[in-house]
Amino acid sequence: MNLYGIVMAGGQGTRFWPESTAKKPKQYLALAGETSLLTQSLERFEGLIPSERRYVVTVKAQEELAKQHSKNNIATNGLIFEPAGRNTAPCILLAIAALVVEGAKLDDVVCIVPSDHVILNENGFRKTVEIASIEASKQQRIVTIGIVPTFPHTGYGYIQKAELQGEAFSVKQFREKPDQETAKSYLKTGEYLWNAGMFVSPIGIFLRELETCSPETFKSYNALVDALTKKDEKLLADIYGQMPKDSIDYAVMEKSKFVSVVPSQFDWNDLGSWDALESIMQATDGNFNVSGDRVLTHEASGNIIFTPGKTTALVGVNDLVVVSNEHSVLVMPKSKSQDVKKIVEKL
Amino acid sequence: MNLYGIVMAGGQGTRFWPESTAKKPKQYLALAGETSLLTQSLERFEGLIPSERRYVVTVKAQEELAKQHSKNNIATNGLIFEPAGRNTAPCILLAIAALVVEGAKLDDVVCIVPSDHVILNENGFRKTVEIASIEASKQQRIVTIGIVPTFPHTGYGYIQKAELQGEAFSVKQFREKPDQETAKSYLKTGEYLWNAGMFVSPIGIFLRELETCSPETFKSYNALVDALTKKDEKLLADIYGQMPKDSIDYAVMEKSKFVSVVPSQFDWNDLGSWDALESIMQATDGNFNVSGDRVLTHEASGNIIFTPGKTTALVGVNDLVVVSNEHSVLVMPKSKSQDVKKIVEKL
Repeated sequence: MNLYGIVMAGGQGTRFWPESTAKKPKQYLALAGETSLLTQSLERFEGLIPSERRYVVTVKAQEELAKQHSKNNIATNGLIFEPAGRNTAPCILLAIAALVVEGAKLDDVVCIVPSDHVILNENGFRKTVEIASIEASKQQRIVTIGIVPTFPHTGYGYIQKAELQGEAFSVKQFREKPDQETAKSYLKTGEYLWNAGMFVSPIGIFLRELETCSPETFKSYNALVDALTKKDEKLLADIYGQMPKDSIDYAVMEKSKFVSVVPSQFDWNDLGSWDALESIMQATDGNFNVSGDRVLTHEASGNIIFTPGKTTALVGVNDLVVVSNEHSVLVMPKSKSQDVKKIVEKL
Repeated sequence: MNLYGIVMAGGQGTRFWPESTAKKPKQYLALAGETSLLTQSLERFEGLIPSERRYVVTVKAQEELAKQHSKNNIATNGLIFEPAGRNTAPCILLAIAALVVEGAKLDDVVCIVPSDHVILNENGFRKTVEIASIEASKQQRIVTIGIVPTFPHTGYGYIQKAELQGEAFSVKQFREKPDQETAKSYLKTGEYLWNAGMFVSPIGIFLRELETCSPETFKSYNALVDALTKKDEKLLADIYGQMPKDSIDYAVMEKSKFVSVVPSQFDWNDLGSWDALESIMQATDGNFNVSGDRVLTHEASGNIIFTPGKTTALVGVNDLVVVSNEHSVLVMPKSKSQDVKKIVEKL
């Protein structure tokens, strides 16, 4: 049994505007260290999945960026292109088809992860994926990695665990984003984990559950394999364009009877907006200097600063996000980080 | 009688950091329109003093900048270099010596102005200088231009006027920066004007009053003329280096019995710091966009923005100064504008 890694990198978020744009989405930014989130997502597999079994799914428009940020870290044909951004169910089916075309067997195990999250404890990540892959193979189930929640977040889906089987819990149910009261009650029970969109499964089991739970999606599988084998981009686009735009949660996870969950043994942050950077960094002189360039402060604290290549001076301001790159400047209170979208809408 | 213009441009202020630096002081910045304050100071003479009678005094270190910002607007030998920055009394004596070497006569009138103030009403300025020059010539006195005060400012010197003679008031006394109570009492009397460092005088009268009031300064005059005639920079530096570092107010204005004042018929702003820009601009969507580049706001008002070449987004912030140039970023409340010096000290 071989373990494969698939990193989904086709996202187009602009919540980190002006640093993230439609042309350079968040996964290509160095928001948590010296390399981009995509590069870190690939390197996180080091020691667990060799680079020749690592793949990146993205869209053609991001080809250059994806190449640049995954070089030396993926298989020779490691870039898989969605003909257009669709949703996670078609994306994952396409990626699995590509792996099969590349020679993966049905009993090989695939680990599917997003490209735009931050995980600093790489050992904990590898340990968790290892457990998940062993259990997935042994139990012939899809094993999700559930994040141990730290507060009643209303922005994530939750996974309710049931009894422990081996080192994985069977899943009672997947729950959509809850309201505040419901989220609080989830945390009290200790039965709920955050759904971070990370899945580990034998390829054959994933395909079988796709067929069972979402035949409308799965029916394109053979045609996808055929188009990929022929390297026929037009055919691929035709097939892909007809697939339902469903999430993998909706298409499979919420319906399948063969899903387990392994709790994360690592920190996790999905960096939803600028203010989230504070939670993955140490403060310097009371401020969060993300890009690590020169910062001078006078009576200023709690600010998040991303100003690559510049000297930044903050005087008498607190709890702001201050961003300046070659083309743009952004200043706002951390608490207004969600409102970046109002600016992006105007642009 | 010819009218000459001298613009003093050797200042080295950094209160507009990061835009103003020791290498590019405030007078070279386009803080009030598309051209720099120095260029505007020269062009303000248009129609009153032809460019071949306009001069700029600066220091050698600013030669390139001064050339660039005064081209087509000054005399052929219009750049006068102080061997080193000293103070206004030696600077003015040097400039007058240079004019005399260039052919100015003792009964020609010189108008001496700073380079880093903003005057938007150019007609009012020319009208005032015209009155001052006529009265200076007619009465054979030094005529200062006094700014009609708009509030009890404690950062300026004041000129107390006495009886009107022709269109100029004789001066009762020059007063140093007052405290708040004193400033208020000045305004109540209606007798006080702000001292903006603008002087109009026949050259011979200015020299005579320098000789009378500050013989220690004046004694270098002939040697300065000699060094300038010989174009001997070393000799000039030797002479200049021995002159007292006095202001023209201390050396002459506060002592001379031949000083009058003409009230300004124009707006005036010395732009002491970033927050002062607000008072010379119209707001756009409630914010002050100094550099005129693209600004997008959401629930943001009263901010002063200087971000040349960039798109700037302000979300939920009020009354800030936001500056970003190629090398630096500055964010502070307008009310803290004086604290820029604390940053400059650290640099």
